[in-house]
Amino acid sequence: MTAPEYRHGRRPGDVRVRLDRPHARYFRYVAPGVYSAKLAADAPSTPVERVAVSARHLLFGRPISTENEIEERLPKWKALPVFSSDVMSSVAYATEASLYTLLGVGTIAFGWLLPISVAIVGVLALVTLSYRQTIRAYPNGGGSYIVAHANLGVLPGLVAAAALLTDYVLTVAVSVSSGVQALYSLFPPLLPYAVPIIVGAILLVMLVNMRGIRESGTVFAAPTYVFLGSALLLIGLGVLRVVLGSPPHVTGVVPAHVPAETFGILLLMRAFADGCSAMTGTEAVANGVPAFKPPEWRNAQTTMVVMALLLGTMFLGISFLAHVSGALPSASGESVLSQIGRSVYGAGALWYILQLSTMGILVLAAQTSFADFPRVSSILAQDGYFPRQFAFRGERLAFNAGIVVLAGLSILLVIAFEGRVEALIPLYALGVFTAFTLSQAGMVRHWLRQKGPGWRRSAFLNGLGAVTTGIVVVIFAVAKFALGAWIILVVVPILVALMLFVHHEYEQESRELDVRPTAQIGPPHRRQRVFVVAPSFTRAVVQAVKVARTTSRDVSIVHVSEDAERGEEFRRRVEAQMPGVQVVLIESPYRSLVRPLLRFLDVARDEDPDAVLVVLIPEYVPRHWWDRVLYNQNSGRIRAALVGRPDIVVLDVPYRRDVAEPTTA
Amino acid sequence: MTAPEYRHGRRPGDVRVRLDRPHARYFRYVAPGVYSAKLAADAPSTPVERVAVSARHLLFGRPISTENEIEERLPKWKALPVFSSDVMSSVAYATEASLYTLLGVGTIAFGWLLPISVAIVGVLALVTLSYRQTIRAYPNGGGSYIVAHANLGVLPGLVAAAALLTDYVLTVAVSVSSGVQALYSLFPPLLPYAVPIIVGAILLVMLVNMRGIRESGTVFAAPTYVFLGSALLLIGLGVLRVVLGSPPHVTGVVPAHVPAETFGILLLMRAFADGCSAMTGTEAVANGVPAFKPPEWRNAQTTMVVMALLLGTMFLGISFLAHVSGALPSASGESVLSQIGRSVYGAGALWYILQLSTMGILVLAAQTSFADFPRVSSILAQDGYFPRQFAFRGERLAFNAGIVVLAGLSILLVIAFEGRVEALIPLYALGVFTAFTLSQAGMVRHWLRQKGPGWRRSAFLNGLGAVTTGIVVVIFAVAKFALGAWIILVVVPILVALMLFVHHEYEQESRELDVRPTAQIGPPHRRQRVFVVAPSFTRAVVQAVKVARTTSRDVSIVHVSEDAERGEEFRRRVEAQMPGVQVVLIESPYRSLVRPLLRFLDVARDEDPDAVLVVLIPEYVPRHWWDRVLYNQNSGRIRAALVGRPDIVVLDVPYRRDVAEPTTA
Repeated sequence: MTAPEYRHGRRPGDVRVRLDRPHARYFRYVAPGVYSAKLAADAPSTPVERVAVSARHLLFGRPISTENEIEERLPKWKALPVFSSDVMSSVAYATEASLYTLLGVGTIAFGWLLPISVAIVGVLALVTLSYRQTIRAYPNGGGSYIVAHANLGVLPGLVAAAALLTDYVLTVAVSVSSGVQALYSLFPPLLPYAVPIIVGAILLVMLVNMRGIRESGTVFAAPTYVFLGSALLLIGLGVLRVVLGSPPHVTGVVPAHVPAETFGILLLMRAFADGCSAMTGTEAVANGVPAFKPPEWRNAQTTMVVMALLLGTMFLGISFLAHVSGALPSASGESVLSQIGRSVYGAGALWYILQLSTMGILVLAAQTSFADFPRVSSILAQDGYFPRQFAFRGERLAFNAGIVVLAGLSILLVIAFEGRVEALIPLYALGVFTAFTLSQAGMVRHWLRQKGPGWRRSAFLNGLGAVTTGIVVVIFAVAKFALGAWIILVVVPILVALMLFVHHEYEQESRELDVRPTAQIGPPHRRQRVFVVAPSFTRAVVQAVKVARTTSRDVSIVHVSEDAERGEEFRRRVEAQMPGVQVVLIESPYRSLVRPLLRFLDVARDEDPDAVLVVLIPEYVPRHWWDRVLYNQNSGRIRAALVGRPDIVVLDVPYRRDVAEPTTA
Repeated sequence: MTAPEYRHGRRPGDVRVRLDRPHARYFRYVAPGVYSAKLAADAPSTPVERVAVSARHLLFGRPISTENEIEERLPKWKALPVFSSDVMSSVAYATEASLYTLLGVGTIAFGWLLPISVAIVGVLALVTLSYRQTIRAYPNGGGSYIVAHANLGVLPGLVAAAALLTDYVLTVAVSVSSGVQALYSLFPPLLPYAVPIIVGAILLVMLVNMRGIRESGTVFAAPTYVFLGSALLLIGLGVLRVVLGSPPHVTGVVPAHVPAETFGILLLMRAFADGCSAMTGTEAVANGVPAFKPPEWRNAQTTMVVMALLLGTMFLGISFLAHVSGALPSASGESVLSQIGRSVYGAGALWYILQLSTMGILVLAAQTSFADFPRVSSILAQDGYFPRQFAFRGERLAFNAGIVVLAGLSILLVIAFEGRVEALIPLYALGVFTAFTLSQAGMVRHWLRQKGPGWRRSAFLNGLGAVTTGIVVVIFAVAKFALGAWIILVVVPILVALMLFVHHEYEQESRELDVRPTAQIGPPHRRQRVFVVAPSFTRAVVQAVKVARTTSRDVSIVHVSEDAERGEEFRRRVEAQMPGVQVVLIESPYRSLVRPLLRFLDVARDEDPDAVLVVLIPEYVPRHWWDRVLYNQNSGRIRAALVGRPDIVVLDVPYRRDVAEPTTA
């Protein structure tokens, strides 16, 4: 490829930048003054860096260009496992959670399981229809934050975001802990290593996610589909046996010991709320619309509906089979799903496959959070509610900051709760239903504003969803408050306050930095008086003086010292080695540095009010972060004291002497 | 006072800096170009700062000028409590520590107490004579570090320093804990608050020390002299009663339960080592010679001898009275000193005064460490083995960094050991005797080199001291290894390694920064090409461009973006608002920032190898440290990648918009 010669900038006479062949290795010629970096421009230049980069590419894959993003989009069959492993996996525990609560009254109450399951599937249907509408209305991603923020205002949006983010962290901790629990139920010697294994599993999921979404779709597809097949086969065979008149029958289970409860509407509502935990993760698809192949919204809608149908089928099927087979929470810890599997499949290969794929999908359930948490934080960062780092995508188009923070927080949670699932569960799902409610309430507002075709029907549907999920939130908060839900009611407001604080800081920055679009910035016209602050006569100071001399002929070197003799010695060296530079010595008998310097600058300003004062601060840059404690405390203090003063321009002159970098040619 | 007009700098034609009356408030005129800051130059300028400074002056006193240092020197009567409270206080536990070990064989072994005490006083005499010689030979302060470093080399010097510093931290923790223990022995309800009380006491001693040494001398004199009088009166009355034939007799003491031991030379040596803990702190005077009023060395020698005589008298006296009165370590925790006091004074006012002043002097014993630790660290900092902050004196002429670090470390130790004295004791005194040994060995070498008058006698004395204290070190290490002394044997080498590391880093800095004394730095002669790195169009960038335009007419603004549209928008703004500035757009489809920028600079350098490339990095400076996570990650990365390259000058342009500071006039 021959790169044409071209001008840098567009004005004639500026013929200085010529891209000859060697540089074509690094840049593609786009237009005058516009370069497009090739992958080679990103190559490391030292051997150490090269090794580090190679290792990174091995772990995470080679960088992907933004232009290639579309190729990384997910086809539906890959999107399903990525966005639904959380939802799917919950059939492994949701039915059992309801039964556990009902068991408080006795097995006599199990008759309520089917009505409750039907009600839950009803809520699921409502939420799904609701989100189908949201996906169409917000094709760029319609998570609760976006919908609530756009329609209800900042605060509801942030509450929805904080509730969701909290739940994502909990999802990772709960699902992975629960999957590993299944593992050491099979292999008890692993029990003492539970926490390290959970942490390791979270780190593994983190690494896979840092490779980017498409590849993680591939990794996660297999276990999800095995579990899906296994569970559907189970239900099919089970129902077939019921139809044929020989229903499966669970034997040899000692009921778990649970505290006695009084039967009543509150208990039924709790059992209902327990079962509702099946629905955490439903929002993932609506958040992730832009990750689908085009037409994004239609593919997302289809995926959403398929997911809900599968979840509804599996949940109802498991509940039905639990009912007919007599499965119940076991004192030995064997899960209801396992009991049903054993009674239908017998204790053979199919039962083992069911168990192992359950384990697998529970660990993968974390994937939904890893797909969504970084996406939501990136949206929050773009809106200025999260630190900017969360908005940037890594080499592989994944939002690495969000991925790492999610993994870190969930690992902390696992360590704090020692990986005990039962302690984490009560914190769970409250956030998701809060977000559902706010999101659907936002959609009602959306339809009321837009009044497009069919708006009444849409608003009614979303309104019904909002009221229903709102009731679930209240049930959750009341029934589980003392069990741990209070933690969420504390954490979410704190998170919201932090996000508002971050936003306030960025707003302030933006006000300070905004340039009026009409302002004309011309060449400098005021005289410059340049002062180099020098604690001693070093190369760093020499560098700063060289810089100073390019900006002005009026250069002074200012030396603050508590020792008059050292000051005179300094003056002698400057006069001998830097002819033409003026020396200012400030003796500071009280050993302070910054304030006498400020006062001296006041003096200098008063002498010559028309000049701009430029203060150069030489700074030795150590090679290692741990060296920071050894250097430059004073440079930092001077800079902090001077910056922001309208009459003074501060320049840091960092200095270090490296071996020359090998020139690339 | 009328400040004369004078010229800034010495060359004619530079008549620009004139100090008129207003500025005379802040500076004293010294010579042309030489200002001496008055206290007013150090005055704060904002109301918030003023309140902070007033609070600081209230706590620590007003700043003291370096020239007034001499007035802060200590007269002997104040130096005695400052440097000897550690030594004095040890009579409260040293005898008891020996008795405790002997009790393992039974009270029958108590007959050995007096011979052991005499041996210890013998060692004390040797060490005192030894240090008298050191004080004369090193009138600027002859701590173990200085003597060992000067005569034996770097490593022995650092080992001595590390051993001493470790022991200073232990002294603070042990003495204050032990004093507070005495307090809650009198008032048991305070027991649960022991650790907070200890921490509070350490903080109090820290604050007093930050006021400077002379005032701390005043604060500490009273309790020390009360204890001294109380203890000497006790011994006088006790001995008088023995002479008069009615020796005091201790009654009602249940002996403490101690593990049975076999009598033998090892047990005697341990009892001897236990008693030797009385001598920790002896080195303080030798370290602190420059804090004495002139003639420093003679006053220090006198103080040293008085201190040793007092210690010897009290230690022998207490041991003698313990022997004749039958005092012994008590199961109830009542100290041997208290038993003797009770038997001599009766349980009246004098006994209470003895007990309370013991408490007081135990807390003040920490003072010796607070006088010495900062002094030793400042010497180490001046020699480049400690971070430079330790070398600077604060407003009140105290070495604040050392004071704060000592307080912090000892508080950590107290919290880690929950203030339990018995757990800390075995770590104690090993360091001091190591330092004694190295220091005296160094003095032997000193005399062998100097061969001044009487060098044989001096060398013999120091040699005898070195051998004796060396034996004590071995006894300590062997007898107390498993009890905790191993911690010291681990910590000291780590400290030494850290100090060598710090020195290595400073050496490297100095090699990098040294300017040859013959180098001539003239005005710049190479062309400058200036590049401003701009992530967006902000005031910070405008500021950087203004600076750039003062240094060169060849100014480009470089914008790296993954988004071509944003790039073009940026170009439009620059071209409209900053005519004359060239725009370079670098599209970075792999979303990396730093490396494409580096490659572009390679391109620019190859185009025009004669020009100096100047890269300006605009940087928004947030007001608060907690904001740092929100800003400038990229500025930092660019700077880190560019600094040190020989062909590129990097300038940070910090920017912030403050409300204008009120002009001082």
